[in-house]
Amino acid sequence: MRVVIIGAGAAGMSSASRIKRLKPETEVIVLEETDFISHAPCGVPYYLEGLVENSKMLSMFTAEEVKSERGIEVRINHKVVDVEHGRVFVEARDSKYSLDYDYLVIATGAKPKVPRMNISTDYLLVHHPAHAEEVKNYLSNKREVIIVGAGLVGVEVAEAMRAQGKRVIVLEFLGGVLRRMLDQDTSSLVENEMRRSGVELVLNEKVVEIKEESGKKVVLTEGNKYRGDAVVIAAGVEPNTWIARRLGIRIGETGAIYTDERMRTSVENVYAAGDNVETNHIVLGKRTYSPFGPVANKMGYVAGANIAGVDAKFPGVVGTAFTKYGELQIGKTGLTEDEAKAHNIKYESALIKAKTRARYYPGGKNIWVKLIVESGSKRILGAQVLGYEEVLGRVDLIAVALHKRMSVEELFYSDLAYLPAVTTVWDPVIVAARQFL
Amino acid sequence: MRVVIIGAGAAGMSSASRIKRLKPETEVIVLEETDFISHAPCGVPYYLEGLVENSKMLSMFTAEEVKSERGIEVRINHKVVDVEHGRVFVEARDSKYSLDYDYLVIATGAKPKVPRMNISTDYLLVHHPAHAEEVKNYLSNKREVIIVGAGLVGVEVAEAMRAQGKRVIVLEFLGGVLRRMLDQDTSSLVENEMRRSGVELVLNEKVVEIKEESGKKVVLTEGNKYRGDAVVIAAGVEPNTWIARRLGIRIGETGAIYTDERMRTSVENVYAAGDNVETNHIVLGKRTYSPFGPVANKMGYVAGANIAGVDAKFPGVVGTAFTKYGELQIGKTGLTEDEAKAHNIKYESALIKAKTRARYYPGGKNIWVKLIVESGSKRILGAQVLGYEEVLGRVDLIAVALHKRMSVEELFYSDLAYLPAVTTVWDPVIVAARQFL
Repeated sequence: MRVVIIGAGAAGMSSASRIKRLKPETEVIVLEETDFISHAPCGVPYYLEGLVENSKMLSMFTAEEVKSERGIEVRINHKVVDVEHGRVFVEARDSKYSLDYDYLVIATGAKPKVPRMNISTDYLLVHHPAHAEEVKNYLSNKREVIIVGAGLVGVEVAEAMRAQGKRVIVLEFLGGVLRRMLDQDTSSLVENEMRRSGVELVLNEKVVEIKEESGKKVVLTEGNKYRGDAVVIAAGVEPNTWIARRLGIRIGETGAIYTDERMRTSVENVYAAGDNVETNHIVLGKRTYSPFGPVANKMGYVAGANIAGVDAKFPGVVGTAFTKYGELQIGKTGLTEDEAKAHNIKYESALIKAKTRARYYPGGKNIWVKLIVESGSKRILGAQVLGYEEVLGRVDLIAVALHKRMSVEELFYSDLAYLPAVTTVWDPVIVAARQFL
Repeated sequence: MRVVIIGAGAAGMSSASRIKRLKPETEVIVLEETDFISHAPCGVPYYLEGLVENSKMLSMFTAEEVKSERGIEVRINHKVVDVEHGRVFVEARDSKYSLDYDYLVIATGAKPKVPRMNISTDYLLVHHPAHAEEVKNYLSNKREVIIVGAGLVGVEVAEAMRAQGKRVIVLEFLGGVLRRMLDQDTSSLVENEMRRSGVELVLNEKVVEIKEESGKKVVLTEGNKYRGDAVVIAAGVEPNTWIARRLGIRIGETGAIYTDERMRTSVENVYAAGDNVETNHIVLGKRTYSPFGPVANKMGYVAGANIAGVDAKFPGVVGTAFTKYGELQIGKTGLTEDEAKAHNIKYESALIKAKTRARYYPGGKNIWVKLIVESGSKRILGAQVLGYEEVLGRVDLIAVALHKRMSVEELFYSDLAYLPAVTTVWDPVIVAARQFL
């Protein structure tokens, strides 16, 4: 039995590993168009910042290691150029060949979106570790960087560029930063943090043109003009679906590949996993697109298990996202107020500010917890947590609560840990929950 | 309507506040035998360490503040010396009086246990903030401190004393430190941390006598003799139940006061809350004694709500506990292996070691996650998490999972947050869960 996997990212490598673990006799061939295996796009901003020395560190393994340790054959710099049922067509540096498969896993990930606008000069996209070094070199002697978009990548690149002392202009057409992740009130906390660090943040302006003028990059919005030495477009990502489309595979309502819980596409023996796939939003009960590493890993794990004959189901996501700006950690899970509104869900919300340690214990920092709760049922719908320490776990505990459809009263009575050095006796999450009792 | 509350600790003050909030016309009188209100026993070790400047900081409010801000009358230095149905008898500095009540809340907390042994010299107990200054003064010129007991307080006092550069000997009759909270394997991580910091830790030795010999304190175990300048007995706490017993109130199987979920004792119109009360262990389905601040606060909140005519139920605990030694944070929730064994529950367990940040992100620290899972059902029974950052939230997310009887498979698929700066793409908790799939 031969399994061909397209893409050696998180999803592809997780499914390859799972198959070899459960059914070692399976032939597993992973085709990867770059020379990065199990790579980490989330690490690219930190590489640009200078925290990660070498872009190769953003790759977990070499092909040799994967082969010898896990028995997985990864063909790097092998690009799939076409596909038909039962066969893929591949181009390598100096060869072209086709490869038959019994099972196919499409793990081609996502690619950065470039919004419709007039562009007549070069610009940067920050996405795949394989291009990180090139991006870093390009930026090395640039003093003024214009970032188009204040989503996750835009904010993370802004952080990296400010840390390097560059002038940073961020242009965002929405009224706040990270507005797909945060509501306006919590977004403004990040905005303040960015402005304090010296970022020139321009909101509510849509970019219409990027061009060159006397050696400078010029970005035109509807009304204004910004000049700099480099332009980064950070407008989100979209799923890479062309291979699925070639096979006539069903594309879901979000524009990503549709699969069932076992990661099976609409075509027999073809699985898909990772940032090219949509999934179930457990809080909403609707399809959603959630292109994050942990999700991709688990989707790959599930695809691999099923191909190896072991039943596994990926239940979906609750909408968790996490980033930071400087020391401010920023997390979200479930629905924002805006999302609840968009889906006509009646909700109540509360935003509290608290300290991370007992009043008398030195070093306590600010933390904000916002809870969104369904009116009537009092079921928790979502949370946004921002603060200077211990943010991750609070997002995670509410994510678990969302998976189990916990009510805000149950959250209030949850037996959370206490120590004066690391939290308050009424934990910030409990204080937020108390607002609804 | 008059409510008399005995004890101005966490439980007493929470119930007083809740009553005044919901039914402001109620007369609420809190009788407190010390001059500390809403005090924080958990902070005492940090005061001894020198991190908290003034022991008064371990009290949240003064009587005047509580009166003016919340309308609660707290009579400090008023000691209840006897009680009968409908009436308490009080002694203040220069008066004796009795006070009738419509409702009584017994919130008398816990007191340090002193094991049966021969004691012929003075020793210290570390418990109530009211005595913290005295303890600190006593210890100020002592070079060698012997601590009897390596439970939560023993470990925290050892930390404080080492931080002050004193010689510290800890004597424990069990085979490891924190053995009521941790299994032997995780306990040994704390043991190593303590020994590295210079603590002389003596395990498996039971103290039989404490005496004075030529100006030194001498502690005798079954077989050995230890000398020092001061002895701290840290042998855990026991509930203060004498008032309840005087009223003929039912005492539970744990030795603490029995209440229902509304915090009602077996005697009409008498409630009890805090470290003198037992509660329900949600994982075990049995009664348990859980003398911790957050539990006391919520019990008080529930007692107060019910007295004010608003229905509220305290569901119980899942067995969460938390402490630290130096930089090592130590948390537990649910059952340990030992507890599972003691209750004849069939279980599997896994202990994993991981990093707190992505491999390529600087500053990642060690973290250990141990999961205990019921055989067959694969329901999570408990966890122990130890590490140098982000431990709290991981304990809390598993605590929430325990409240909702989550299976380890559901935990594995939980949509936890990811950012290279604060966790790994396979979060340590997910890695631990994966061991059971």
